[in-house]
Amino acid sequence: MDPMTIVGLLIAIATTFGAMTMGGIDPMSIFFADIGSIILVLGGTLGATLASQSMDDAVNAGKVIVKGLATPKQPDSAETIKKILGFAETARKEGLLALESASKEIEDPFLRKGIEMSVDGTDPEVVREVLETEMSATSDRHKAGSNFFTTMAGYSPAFGVAGTVIGLIDMLNNLSDPSALGPALAVAFSTTLWGVFLANYIFQPIASTLKRSSELEMAYKQLVLDGILSIQAGASPRAVSDRLAAYLAPSQQEALQEKKSA
Amino acid sequence: MDPMTIVGLLIAIATTFGAMTMGGIDPMSIFFADIGSIILVLGGTLGATLASQSMDDAVNAGKVIVKGLATPKQPDSAETIKKILGFAETARKEGLLALESASKEIEDPFLRKGIEMSVDGTDPEVVREVLETEMSATSDRHKAGSNFFTTMAGYSPAFGVAGTVIGLIDMLNNLSDPSALGPALAVAFSTTLWGVFLANYIFQPIASTLKRSSELEMAYKQLVLDGILSIQAGASPRAVSDRLAAYLAPSQQEALQEKKSA
Amino acid sequence: MDPMTIVGLLIAIATTFGAMTMGGIDPMSIFFADIGSIILVLGGTLGATLASQSMDDAVNAGKVIVKGLATPKQPDSAETIKKILGFAETARKEGLLALESASKEIEDPFLRKGIEMSVDGTDPEVVREVLETEMSATSDRHKAGSNFFTTMAGYSPAFGVAGTVIGLIDMLNNLSDPSALGPALAVAFSTTLWGVFLANYIFQPIASTLKRSSELEMAYKQLVLDGILSIQAGASPRAVSDRLAAYLAPSQQEALQEKKSA
Amino acid sequence: MDPMTIVGLLIAIATTFGAMTMGGIDPMSIFFADIGSIILVLGGTLGATLASQSMDDAVNAGKVIVKGLATPKQPDSAETIKKILGFAETARKEGLLALESASKEIEDPFLRKGIEMSVDGTDPEVVREVLETEMSATSDRHKAGSNFFTTMAGYSPAFGVAGTVIGLIDMLNNLSDPSALGPALAVAFSTTLWGVFLANYIFQPIASTLKRSSELEMAYKQLVLDGILSIQAGASPRAVSDRLAAYLAPSQQEALQEKKSA
Amino acid sequence: MDPMTIVGLLIAIATTFGAMTMGGIDPMSIFFADIGSIILVLGGTLGATLASQSMDDAVNAGKVIVKGLATPKQPDSAETIKKILGFAETARKEGLLALESASKEIEDPFLRKGIEMSVDGTDPEVVREVLETEMSATSDRHKAGSNFFTTMAGYSPAFGVAGTVIGLIDMLNNLSDPSALGPALAVAFSTTLWGVFLANYIFQPIASTLKRSSELEMAYKQLVLDGILSIQAGASPRAVSDRLAAYLAPSQQEALQEKKSA
Repeated sequence: MDPMTIVGLLIAIATTFGAMTMGGIDPMSIFFADIGSIILVLGGTLGATLASQSMDDAVNAGKVIVKGLATPKQPDSAETIKKILGFAETARKEGLLALESASKEIEDPFLRKGIEMSVDGTDPEVVREVLETEMSATSDRHKAGSNFFTTMAGYSPAFGVAGTVIGLIDMLNNLSDPSALGPALAVAFSTTLWGVFLANYIFQPIASTLKRSSELEMAYKQLVLDGILSIQAGASPRAVSDRLAAYLAPSQQEALQEKKSA
Repeated sequence: MDPMTIVGLLIAIATTFGAMTMGGIDPMSIFFADIGSIILVLGGTLGATLASQSMDDAVNAGKVIVKGLATPKQPDSAETIKKILGFAETARKEGLLALESASKEIEDPFLRKGIEMSVDGTDPEVVREVLETEMSATSDRHKAGSNFFTTMAGYSPAFGVAGTVIGLIDMLNNLSDPSALGPALAVAFSTTLWGVFLANYIFQPIASTLKRSSELEMAYKQLVLDGILSIQAGASPRAVSDRLAAYLAPSQQEALQEKKSA
Repeated sequence: MDPMTIVGLLIAIATTFGAMTMGGIDPMSIFFADIGSIILVLGGTLGATLASQSMDDAVNAGKVIVKGLATPKQPDSAETIKKILGFAETARKEGLLALESASKEIEDPFLRKGIEMSVDGTDPEVVREVLETEMSATSDRHKAGSNFFTTMAGYSPAFGVAGTVIGLIDMLNNLSDPSALGPALAVAFSTTLWGVFLANYIFQPIASTLKRSSELEMAYKQLVLDGILSIQAGASPRAVSDRLAAYLAPSQQEALQEKKSA
Repeated sequence: MDPMTIVGLLIAIATTFGAMTMGGIDPMSIFFADIGSIILVLGGTLGATLASQSMDDAVNAGKVIVKGLATPKQPDSAETIKKILGFAETARKEGLLALESASKEIEDPFLRKGIEMSVDGTDPEVVREVLETEMSATSDRHKAGSNFFTTMAGYSPAFGVAGTVIGLIDMLNNLSDPSALGPALAVAFSTTLWGVFLANYIFQPIASTLKRSSELEMAYKQLVLDGILSIQAGASPRAVSDRLAAYLAPSQQEALQEKKSA
Repeated sequence: MDPMTIVGLLIAIATTFGAMTMGGIDPMSIFFADIGSIILVLGGTLGATLASQSMDDAVNAGKVIVKGLATPKQPDSAETIKKILGFAETARKEGLLALESASKEIEDPFLRKGIEMSVDGTDPEVVREVLETEMSATSDRHKAGSNFFTTMAGYSPAFGVAGTVIGLIDMLNNLSDPSALGPALAVAFSTTLWGVFLANYIFQPIASTLKRSSELEMAYKQLVLDGILSIQAGASPRAVSDRLAAYLAPSQQEALQEKKSA
């Protein structure tokens, strides 16, 4: 997961708790006064989310989330372009077969598979189909992760409302003691708070960051795929460079130029 | 239906009832105090949903739901790939006609139809068109099932609100007895609760799981279709394996390798 | 209109009124206490909907709705396939011209036009273009009908809220008589009720059923179009049957087999 | 603008004011009691909408709206088809160059441009590209007009809520005089009313009618484009008629037949 | 950023403050009474938005926003068309190589890159692919900027509600002093106000203007791309002019005619 996610979540929670303390409100007394509210919202949201998915999705979501947390950041596109340009030069001078030994040292399994297929003489159209199928299957697996949290974020406020309505009904049935009205209503609203809190401070940001992380990985794989097909087509390193540099921001394009001339 | 759906629904309901009991609220007294609320929400939602569909859709929805409940889980993609690789090898060595006897033992009607058409010498473009038309017709029928519950989930809170407004108006017309105000309001909110409850604890999770289950079946059929077309094109088992493995998760790809070498 | 629509609407309204009566609430006193509420919601919704459309759309919507109410149900796909197979056989044995006399007895104008164009020797690509243009123009006209009710369903709750806010403001301006507060508020909420009621019990279900009915007609026309093009291409009845059967549900496919062998 | 838009808006406002008067509420006292509410909602909505667009969009929106108000209705498709059939006949008998003098009298600039390019011997593929680019650029300009009102309709209720919250806060800060509570709250809700009123009675209907009007113009231009390309391809008037009639409703198709035989 | 954005924001805020002052409400006392409300909404919204993105997105968003503020307006399409027509004439008379010296003086890097690639004899299909990849990469970077504010606008009201619920719970827990009820509720609603205010007066307009500005830049680049490909294809200046003029509004097309004849 991108470090920005953790920083952002901390900012959101810290400023909320800070603003409460500033206003003389004890955050603990508001958030943790009624443990039942937390159980109802968390349990209901998790249950409904699990029920909305298949067993495999839930397992996949777990893997994607763990992997997302473990992987600190996206691969460096400019670095990869430099590597592909090296392969293009070798392929041009000594033929595709000359990439065989180099291909074994490639860390990125997607790039390695593409180069290996090229070395094996696989038809370019088949290389494209296989790699595109793999991209779309990977993207589907990633979606299991982000969908998990999107679903959580969607259910969470609804379960908050359900809890509040339950609290309201209970309170209205027991109006005999007016002095208990305020605190009973406070407990009822506590599930609304948890529904809104979990959705906006936790689930939605995580869903967005997982989705965005998948988009970036797909854009990176598209760049790699274009590079592999250019190498296979025997394009000149200059042409490959023009082609791939178009994926980069202007500042990165300049950095690429410097790297090449260095 | 995926076992996860039943587990998830049970978690959602159990935690809600548990949290209520923890807070000293009797779930039965909240949910079942006013049978009229349940009739209004369920009847209204079901009626509006039926009215939103054609007779055939309603019948189809029934079939899809029953089938969805009866089928425990999705077919095993890795197992199917192994089977297709076997056919590819036979077709390569002994020709497509050699698949005739094997085709009769295939359980999956979609794979069987494809292999039979190939054995009959049907043009690959026609095979693709027929199977794709069948996939899209199947997917449309599945949608009747998930749409049924999506529509229920959409109407349910609206009927909850309608019931509450009816209750509110009735109460406002009879303000003479202040002591009845609380319980009357409680009954009014009881339809809101049922609207929210049915939508989020029951209808939406079932709609999602039916939709997801259809997506997985379509992905599986796409894999089968690709396999059949590869066999017909006379691709080498190695190429077929590369092509189909791209549909699998990395861990399943390794399992496939092991199965092949085993 | 599908009979299911009328059945569904009756269920929704009957259960609502039944639940109200069960709870000791007179439905008439709730729904018809304030005629002004009904006029405001209905008039506002109808006015805004008419203003959102062109004159032609409104006229078209009227025609589509009347036709939708008059047509009891969709044509029978299996029956049509049998008819097309008959034409395919004739065309195969005696040539396309042999369909000239048969074409004059076809009731469905879409199928008739296609067969006539084929008999006239029109280029298959032109037949496809003309029929697809007609399908898309028909679908656009149908949308005028369903959009009319979708728009009504969208505006209706907003006009309900507008009426309630008007009632609230009037009441707040006249707080001098506390005993009138309840009934005045009841009247104010009566527009909310009508807004929610019309949208969910009437407009949205009719919009959905008209949209669904158009989808089914388009799927049917696609089947007919595929059949005509197959006949023109001189496909064998067996191939035409394989091609068109893919549009049917498995149970209908079996029924088709039986009809053929019968 | 279609006359239906003005009729619809009048119906919506008249029935609302009529229903209010029926219920003994003076519409003026509700809508115009607090001029500040109107300024806040209108000013906020207009400001936010202008800020959401570029200067050119705002200018374009102005032009499109003025033109939309000035143009009473859409061109007559059946009339245009008759004209195109005339051109097709001339082109068939005397060649495309024979259309030169006729082209100068065409009022519709889109049809004229297409015929002129055909007469000049422009390649059909270029004619299609130029006219399609013009259609998409026209459609984009139209969107500036409908988006302006869609954006207004989107912001308007939010500014109504903002005004109400401001009024509520002010009132809660000054609870010392209970007798002023009602009227103060009435003023606060007055911005909600204006937000809902402007969005649903004015902005949304105008946005929809402008959008629909653009769709109809695009469908008409597509018909003209098809006609021009058919003429250029030297199609027989019979074939052109079949092709273009498919755009019309069944009743209009019959009218076209009668016109032709007349 | 378009000057219209700043003008619009000022109109929205000025009319709001003016309407408040007119109604005898001091805007400062409403908006700045509780600094904690502002901190909670701004901090929560910013934190959740940062958490929803990757580090690179946040950096990109910063760059896009700064650049958007610095660039006063879009390039002049008519001016660019005139320039491209000049290139087309030169290329026609003296060949593509004659554009080499002119290409060095082009300010727009996108047009310059296209002309340079044409001069270098790059295959037209490759020129299109490289420029389209660059357009789509630029558009993705722009989205980082508008998405940043769209996300802010989406979270902002939710954090306003969270703050209000926190304030409500705190107040309900401390009902002992009825006289403090009003002001405490006022502070609670102050977060709702800030949530609505920031979303509608600031974040959403800026998001829309950044998005629109990106759309206009993409339309401009499409025009440039079409021009470059026409020049490479050796089209006559007349044909290029017809082709590109279709992108302009009718009034601009006339201006272009005048410029050409001048």
